Amino acid sequence: VFIGLGLHGEHGLTLEGLEQARQADMVYIETYTNLMPGLSLKRLEELFGKSISELSREDLEDNPDKSILENAKGLTVALAVPGDPMVATTHVDLRLRAKKVGIETDVVNGTSIYSAAPAASGLQIYKFGKTVTIPYTSPIYKPVTPYNVIRENQARNLHTLILLDIDAEKKRYMTVREGLRYLLETEKSSNENVVMLDTLAVGVAGLGSSTPLVKADRVGRLLDVDFGVLPHTLIFPAGLHFMEAEALRAFAGAPEKLLRVD
Amino acid sequence: VFIGLGLHGEHGLTLEGLEQARQADMVYIETYTNLMPGLSLKRLEELFGKSISELSREDLEDNPDKSILENAKGLTVALAVPGDPMVATTHVDLRLRAKKVGIETDVVNGTSIYSAAPAASGLQIYKFGKTVTIPYTSPIYKPVTPYNVIRENQARNLHTLILLDIDAEKKRYMTVREGLRYLLETEKSSNENVVMLDTLAVGVAGLGSSTPLVKADRVGRLLDVDFGVLPHTLIFPAGLHFMEAEALRAFAGAPEKLLRVD
Repeated sequence: VFIGLGLHGEHGLTLEGLEQARQADMVYIETYTNLMPGLSLKRLEELFGKSISELSREDLEDNPDKSILENAKGLTVALAVPGDPMVATTHVDLRLRAKKVGIETDVVNGTSIYSAAPAASGLQIYKFGKTVTIPYTSPIYKPVTPYNVIRENQARNLHTLILLDIDAEKKRYMTVREGLRYLLETEKSSNENVVMLDTLAVGVAGLGSSTPLVKADRVGRLLDVDFGVLPHTLIFPAGLHFMEAEALRAFAGAPEKLLRVD
Repeated sequence: VFIGLGLHGEHGLTLEGLEQARQADMVYIETYTNLMPGLSLKRLEELFGKSISELSREDLEDNPDKSILENAKGLTVALAVPGDPMVATTHVDLRLRAKKVGIETDVVNGTSIYSAAPAASGLQIYKFGKTVTIPYTSPIYKPVTPYNVIRENQARNLHTLILLDIDAEKKRYMTVREGLRYLLETEKSSNENVVMLDTLAVGVAGLGSSTPLVKADRVGRLLDVDFGVLPHTLIFPAGLHFMEAEALRAFAGAPEKLLRVD
């Protein structure tokens, strides 16, 4: 049973997820596909009434047969994961491996940044195009894809949700500022006027925590904002419905002059 | 406080949502923006430890000042809603009205079809383009938009999530079959080879229930499938990653010959 933990902490868990974890013979958890800064393993163990084994990326991706799948052949095994299960490819991969060895699987949904970030911004979710992630780069890996996805979505007048990379092993979590700098650097080489200092963007941080922050402003201003609680997310809005403009103003402090209503 | 109830029944509620509803002075619910066939108002009242007032579309959209907003001036008022709050425009509208009269608002996320349907299909969520809803039509309202959105997404090799209309007042909830028929009819007039009898599609039904169904097949075959528990959702896949193809085969029974791997 894949159980989605939702956003931020153990309070994002659903009643169904809690029930299934309590009934399971064994509970595993992975916390590397997303960051949940409010999650305490100890409190989760108290909620579930049993101990929880934490799996590393290696345990889960290279060698699941040795632990979780072997146990799941005879027992009911739950795997708790950040957000909504199956959004991360690694969960789909594990589910396929389970199927191949005759283990039945079930999915308990969790809340997800895919609907929570658009919802927090006040932008309408059906007006979003393709989503993209800004990755941590190396001297030989600096993809232009995130920039191009914003450009292609804007050509169709669609908003863009941009996830920011996490590297759990190195405890690196990309901030709004780092994401914006990456896009501004791509702008320098691509030069198609997609992400400039006066482009409207929305930074979203700490969803599911008691101190979420949603701030809409020009890119140049957002670079100076400390967004606080991780993980961070970015949105580049396209043309706005008047209610979207009103929501960005009311709940994200957007300056009037940046709001382009269709 | 807007509280997302998630999918299907009260077990989709998060621990945070439960806590906030218990602490609220008054709890309202609206059940017309989506269908939750497994939800019992009585069980929800037992969970919350208080009575819940149900609001109609009119109560919420035409006249919220008389009830919910008036009470929220002095009390902590919770509004429980299907899915994830703010995904429906009517919630954004109410939140804006509250802000205008000086009432602070908070949002507790719920699970959403926007991540749950892609997750259930095994298709990767970042490869989805714009989402669209097939509406109930009238002799003078038969939009081509749903068909065009599939076509535009496919031109960018992106999957399409298609929500199916609900009309809670008339208790009409569009089925996979009705949605497909609508698209086939549009195909007849538009004639761009987007939705044909041998096009691959995925029907998704009953997510969050104990009997969900995910079935991938050619449109002509899906017309004959009884998808059972409402609400229903449709997905039109674009080109597939090999793991997506494997997932469609393993978990949605897709016939091998329909799977086009990029």
